Amino acid sequence: MLATPMKAYVYVSLKKSVLDPQGKTIHSALKKMGYRGLEEVRQGKYFELTLDGGLTRPEAEAEIGRIAREVLTNPVIEEFRFSLEE
Amino acid sequence: MLATPMKAYVYVSLKKSVLDPQGKTIHSALKKMGYRGLEEVRQGKYFELTLDGGLTRPEAEAEIGRIAREVLTNPVIEEFRFSLEE
Repeated sequence: MLATPMKAYVYVSLKKSVLDPQGKTIHSALKKMGYRGLEEVRQGKYFELTLDGGLTRPEAEAEIGRIAREVLTNPVIEEFRFSLEE
Repeated sequence: MLATPMKAYVYVSLKKSVLDPQGKTIHSALKKMGYRGLEEVRQGKYFELTLDGGLTRPEAEAEIGRIAREVLTNPVIEEFRFSLEE
């Protein structure tokens, strides 16, 4: 029997030690526009992967982990996290 | 007393009805590289906003909602969701 199709959400962001000029620009734009209460803004990327149901959950976790680590993330400056939902 | 500093995570993605050529490109690249089990890939943006602790939780929710709706999202083609963590 095939597994239920799952969705994987992969979030890629710059490492804390890496400057994020894009985030800084958004932050100062928001401040100038009058939005209150912000201390820092950082921008990242977000991928939504729909699986075709041919993998079991552990297989899917391994495959998404490989995709995130090997393709979607630049390990020198970025880090990722992902979640898998049925 | 000031509220505890919170973090807001805003996820912006293309509406389902909008074509995502970038996601399609990533999808076919992953297929060619031999990754299995994917049906669709869509890419979005992700913002991490650190709050300065000067807003209560309801105020922060309202402010982050306004920022996401009015600035971070193009309502014609995009939609957003956000979460707020202590």
